[in-house]
Amino acid sequence: MTATGRVLARIETDFAAYQARWMDWLRIPSISAQPAHAADCRTAAEFARRDLADLGFTAAIHETAGQPVVLAHHPGPGDGRGVPRLLFYGHYDVQPPEPLELWTSPPFEPVVVDGPRGKRVVARGAVDDKGQASMWLGALRAWVEETGGLPVPVTVLIEGEEEIGSPSLEAFLDAERARLGADVVVVSDTSTWDIDTPAVTTRLRGLVYLEVRLRAAQRDLHSGLFGGAAQNAVNLLARALTALVDAKGRVMLPGFYDGVAETPAEQRAEWDRLGYDEAAFLGRIGLRHPAGEAGRGGLERRWARPTCDVNGIWGGYAGPGAKTVIAAEAGAKVSFRLVPGQEPDQVIAAFKQFITAQVPDDAKLDFEVFSSARAIEVPRDSRFVTAAQEALAAEYGRPAALIGSGGSIPVVESFKRLLGLDSLLLGFGLDDDQTHSPNEKFEVRCFHHGLRTHARLIGQLGGA
Amino acid sequence: MTATGRVLARIETDFAAYQARWMDWLRIPSISAQPAHAADCRTAAEFARRDLADLGFTAAIHETAGQPVVLAHHPGPGDGRGVPRLLFYGHYDVQPPEPLELWTSPPFEPVVVDGPRGKRVVARGAVDDKGQASMWLGALRAWVEETGGLPVPVTVLIEGEEEIGSPSLEAFLDAERARLGADVVVVSDTSTWDIDTPAVTTRLRGLVYLEVRLRAAQRDLHSGLFGGAAQNAVNLLARALTALVDAKGRVMLPGFYDGVAETPAEQRAEWDRLGYDEAAFLGRIGLRHPAGEAGRGGLERRWARPTCDVNGIWGGYAGPGAKTVIAAEAGAKVSFRLVPGQEPDQVIAAFKQFITAQVPDDAKLDFEVFSSARAIEVPRDSRFVTAAQEALAAEYGRPAALIGSGGSIPVVESFKRLLGLDSLLLGFGLDDDQTHSPNEKFEVRCFHHGLRTHARLIGQLGGA
Repeated sequence: MTATGRVLARIETDFAAYQARWMDWLRIPSISAQPAHAADCRTAAEFARRDLADLGFTAAIHETAGQPVVLAHHPGPGDGRGVPRLLFYGHYDVQPPEPLELWTSPPFEPVVVDGPRGKRVVARGAVDDKGQASMWLGALRAWVEETGGLPVPVTVLIEGEEEIGSPSLEAFLDAERARLGADVVVVSDTSTWDIDTPAVTTRLRGLVYLEVRLRAAQRDLHSGLFGGAAQNAVNLLARALTALVDAKGRVMLPGFYDGVAETPAEQRAEWDRLGYDEAAFLGRIGLRHPAGEAGRGGLERRWARPTCDVNGIWGGYAGPGAKTVIAAEAGAKVSFRLVPGQEPDQVIAAFKQFITAQVPDDAKLDFEVFSSARAIEVPRDSRFVTAAQEALAAEYGRPAALIGSGGSIPVVESFKRLLGLDSLLLGFGLDDDQTHSPNEKFEVRCFHHGLRTHARLIGQLGGA
Repeated sequence: MTATGRVLARIETDFAAYQARWMDWLRIPSISAQPAHAADCRTAAEFARRDLADLGFTAAIHETAGQPVVLAHHPGPGDGRGVPRLLFYGHYDVQPPEPLELWTSPPFEPVVVDGPRGKRVVARGAVDDKGQASMWLGALRAWVEETGGLPVPVTVLIEGEEEIGSPSLEAFLDAERARLGADVVVVSDTSTWDIDTPAVTTRLRGLVYLEVRLRAAQRDLHSGLFGGAAQNAVNLLARALTALVDAKGRVMLPGFYDGVAETPAEQRAEWDRLGYDEAAFLGRIGLRHPAGEAGRGGLERRWARPTCDVNGIWGGYAGPGAKTVIAAEAGAKVSFRLVPGQEPDQVIAAFKQFITAQVPDDAKLDFEVFSSARAIEVPRDSRFVTAAQEALAAEYGRPAALIGSGGSIPVVESFKRLLGLDSLLLGFGLDDDQTHSPNEKFEVRCFHHGLRTHARLIGQLGGA
């Protein structure tokens, strides 16, 4: 039996212990957004540090301006020649659990319940990201406990501010780059295609997120006395925002599509084979008509085409009843999801110019940028993607899809930009895991597959 | 000396007493919107009732579902043949004075201060409407005290809910129509053109005010995972509202302009002679570019053309920072100022139909109507307008303009619709009186002119 075979057998024998360790971690309310939980964040970091130190990692808590980071290293087989160095990234912090009244059990008292697809664990962080990180932590443990070591050098980085936008991470990557040498970053923070169809995510969209505030008159005005004379900030802003996207769903910023490549036919064919049912997808959220660019496939629109959404708008009177006011001010949050070939800075500049050109020159505009991140595309033929596909196929008994995600994982872009590292996005979540919502859950079957897939991948990359 | 001449002389002699009575009324904080001031509203009503009873009116307080109404009657000369019956309408309630910290003196402690155009009285209600009503109450007093009676039959109706939309008035008009027989309603709740140029208002715009709420998906969605697939309520609503008005300021509802007559050339020429300086008007509110229909004059746009304004809008995330949400719901308050020839019900129906046609049929729409009132146009050649012009010309020594107002006075429409009565809109306010704002004021010169003009008008209509 190969070493990998023995490790997989051990996982089966000890599975209850891996699940118990995951659930113990879930009991720590490490909510990074809430200052009252700072000590809990440290406890959750220490939990992971001790876990890794037990396995022979040199493991330390590093202070940052915010929540601490766990950084750990295991040299692997020693000579290291010919085997890749892996950097596992995860986060121990979780989203606030509110609204509490919608939970069916307390968010930090994980429970195992029966669901239509077997057992599931319900708790805040069940999947995001303690559950997903527990899979590769478990795989590392199984390797060490079964074979006395690891077949590849491994660095582990577990941060505590992902849910608040990782404000301290880039400074940390920059300061610790000497300890972060690796050939690939392994990230388990995405979803699989469905519970039976494994997948590697090779695309993430980028994000530009801005706020625009428009001021017309110096003060709110009476709409009777000034209607037909004074410009209305709400009318002006709504008109400018509407002009951003045409009736066919194309974003009208000049140059917006210049660097955007057509999705290769082969890629589209592969996505077609996934059997995506857009009507069913929309039906689950109560819709029948899709948004986005006319004439594009459903998955292409979600994964490979840029978008523009107004995420919020306000202005004038929004209370009960009527107030006949012409608003002096209005504002909106606007975001663009970007695809490879688009530069966030160019999109920001084009947006400002476009909105400015849409409104009269006596209107005052203010802009604030909250996010600016390029899209990510992992080469589909990289050795890591191929190895992950092989590990998944062996585990699931069916080929792994290469999928995209319409969302953004800013840290993936940070690793690429600051350290030049590609990421392997190997996630086991499902669309209905209620991430960030009440009753977050992770299927035990997904956890089990993920734990074993990580063990297989480590063995395969280490030639073991 | 004519009777009118003697009455005017008496006003000069007793002017301080008229001003004192006006200021006494202002000391009563009769804020109809605030339940804590219900007793003050009754006190203000009783103040007016007693004033009228002193003059020989049969005067009574009438209960309503809300604040009480003062109704009073004086038979005039007795035979009444050939002289018109006047119904004076006013309101004793005032707007809330908040924000109090912006007042330079307490809002219910009226003070006389020096301004660039002489003395002025500063207090909540100084002009709207206790100040304007005190002018005709004073004129009635001067006639009775000087001549022992009135040359015309007079009914007085002073309500206490004008500032909250007169919710009880229509039921009152309906119930008391037998006591409200008159040939014209005299209303002093408008402005003059400027302090030296008297005016009669012959046009008021109508008003349709609605709220529209749009729901797209069943819940708020992640803009990464759903962007390019799911319709966004904010985008949809902004697009639909923007389509309401074209780039030239024309309202796009089908049939909206069908009944709208072109402003007669003679009328436009008369308005042109007022020397309206739109650049100065806009400059005072910090704007340079006018709104409204391209190619129309500034006063025509404010007084004789219909408009559409979004008075408020909301949807999605409006807090600090970024939230990548696709909003399930958005809403807006939308109003139309109407001109003669437009039917509110048709505008409401066209609006609902238009918005419905603009959004996908899986979006859910809810509409709520808050106001629906026709525009008012008083015949320019009516005997009452002519009499008022003559009284004003005699008082000011210069001709009175016939002007419009872009606002709406719903009670004027109620008198027309329920009792068939035209109104004579004879107001003496100025644009800078700070009506509804802190430091509301009324120029003593305007009050003096208004008091004397009402006295002249009564004499003229009574042939005295």
